[in-house]
Amino acid sequence: MCQLLGMNCNTPTDIVFSFTGFATRGGLTDHHSDGWGIAFFEGSGVRHFVDYQAAVTSPVADLIRRCPIKSQHVIAHIRKATQGRVTLANCHPFVRELWGRYWVFAHNGDLKNFNPTLDGPYRPVGTTDSEHAFCYLLQELQRTFGSALPPLADLRAELARLMPLIAAHGAFNMLLSDGSALFAHCSTNLYYVIRQHPFTTAKLSDEDLSVDFAEVTTTNDRVAVIVTQPLTTNETWTAFQSGELITFIDGEVA
Amino acid sequence: MCQLLGMNCNTPTDIVFSFTGFATRGGLTDHHSDGWGIAFFEGSGVRHFVDYQAAVTSPVADLIRRCPIKSQHVIAHIRKATQGRVTLANCHPFVRELWGRYWVFAHNGDLKNFNPTLDGPYRPVGTTDSEHAFCYLLQELQRTFGSALPPLADLRAELARLMPLIAAHGAFNMLLSDGSALFAHCSTNLYYVIRQHPFTTAKLSDEDLSVDFAEVTTTNDRVAVIVTQPLTTNETWTAFQSGELITFIDGEVA
Repeated sequence: MCQLLGMNCNTPTDIVFSFTGFATRGGLTDHHSDGWGIAFFEGSGVRHFVDYQAAVTSPVADLIRRCPIKSQHVIAHIRKATQGRVTLANCHPFVRELWGRYWVFAHNGDLKNFNPTLDGPYRPVGTTDSEHAFCYLLQELQRTFGSALPPLADLRAELARLMPLIAAHGAFNMLLSDGSALFAHCSTNLYYVIRQHPFTTAKLSDEDLSVDFAEVTTTNDRVAVIVTQPLTTNETWTAFQSGELITFIDGEVA
Repeated sequence: MCQLLGMNCNTPTDIVFSFTGFATRGGLTDHHSDGWGIAFFEGSGVRHFVDYQAAVTSPVADLIRRCPIKSQHVIAHIRKATQGRVTLANCHPFVRELWGRYWVFAHNGDLKNFNPTLDGPYRPVGTTDSEHAFCYLLQELQRTFGSALPPLADLRAELARLMPLIAAHGAFNMLLSDGSALFAHCSTNLYYVIRQHPFTTAKLSDEDLSVDFAEVTTTNDRVAVIVTQPLTTNETWTAFQSGELITFIDGEVA
């Protein structure tokens, strides 16, 4: 199994604190050492980093810890290989373009006998069930809505229709973003916290590290953090219901 | 105008030496300081780094200079904005997926009145003529060959047909790779050198740096380097003809 970390904010925010705790699970406090990846939206562009070295030792992960990249939508993943070899092509998150936007996707879970026909423009490059599911999602979105981005309500309704079709094949905790919203679906494990004014001090579960968010934020900032396992010991994390799909926009539930 | 750097090898090779000279042009010895990018194939996977900071000061470029990433196909670009704002979405190289492979593309030049209809699955995310041309190329390849990768000779013939259609609109020096070959097209400026046994010492034009490739290679290694301006002062660079499309495989002209 793998670990997911998502962040959605109303103002570009760095993910250094949460990523530090999260990356520690990649080979140090946990057994997720078969690669990792992270994608940051900056406007409509994406910075995409993947590595098959453990996140705890990867020089690219070290760069991300040291150089704060500010973003409103971040998706990160630490991989424990269940299907597919440990290669770069199998590292999440995956990125594709649809409707002139980049879409970023990462998955936690294991799908069995999930082989929908992919006869649209999206094909997996690697060999994971996860990338297959991502290609299927984009194919179906394109089929349903044609050549233009639909209104958010329609997009959300279509995603809500598609999620159980995939989750019928196994655990499908996933994070998906097009740079305007972050969609999070839970089948077994997903939690979120909203950090907003008045900010407090948060303490990482995985490292002896605390941060007082009041010192690094303004009163208008709002940040949603979504994870497969809570990252901090002194914040209240809300558990998703099984089958729940939540849309995050501007750091809150939309 | 921008600068291009491509590398195609018969064994995974690091690009640190060539990238060091190339990156120096991004803001220090030349005026290409509106961002940069580089993509490395590792197997079928791609590491993709883009930044709108000048390559000479970018912490990501510094990581690439310090951490040798070995690859058989590399495409790098330093940008001087001619069309499109300086944003991440406008940084080359661009990456898309076709036939279950990633395709990487970078362009040097400036296209005028190039607005072919894009009604296939590929749409630009940014606002450059270059990304428009890339989407057009992939759309036409998919239209011509359908759902499966064609034999190399057919692919090359189709690219040779498409290049002058784009180059009719302006300078179209470009590098394109699907991780099995590197295609290079020249309309105004492109050079290549093949480094192979017996290796010699090469001296960068842009920095006071030399490397004796004999010390870091085996006698079987072969590396083709393709650039818009020769990087070294003591190697013989072959100039492309205008309109020439060359395919590099395993470090040689295929």
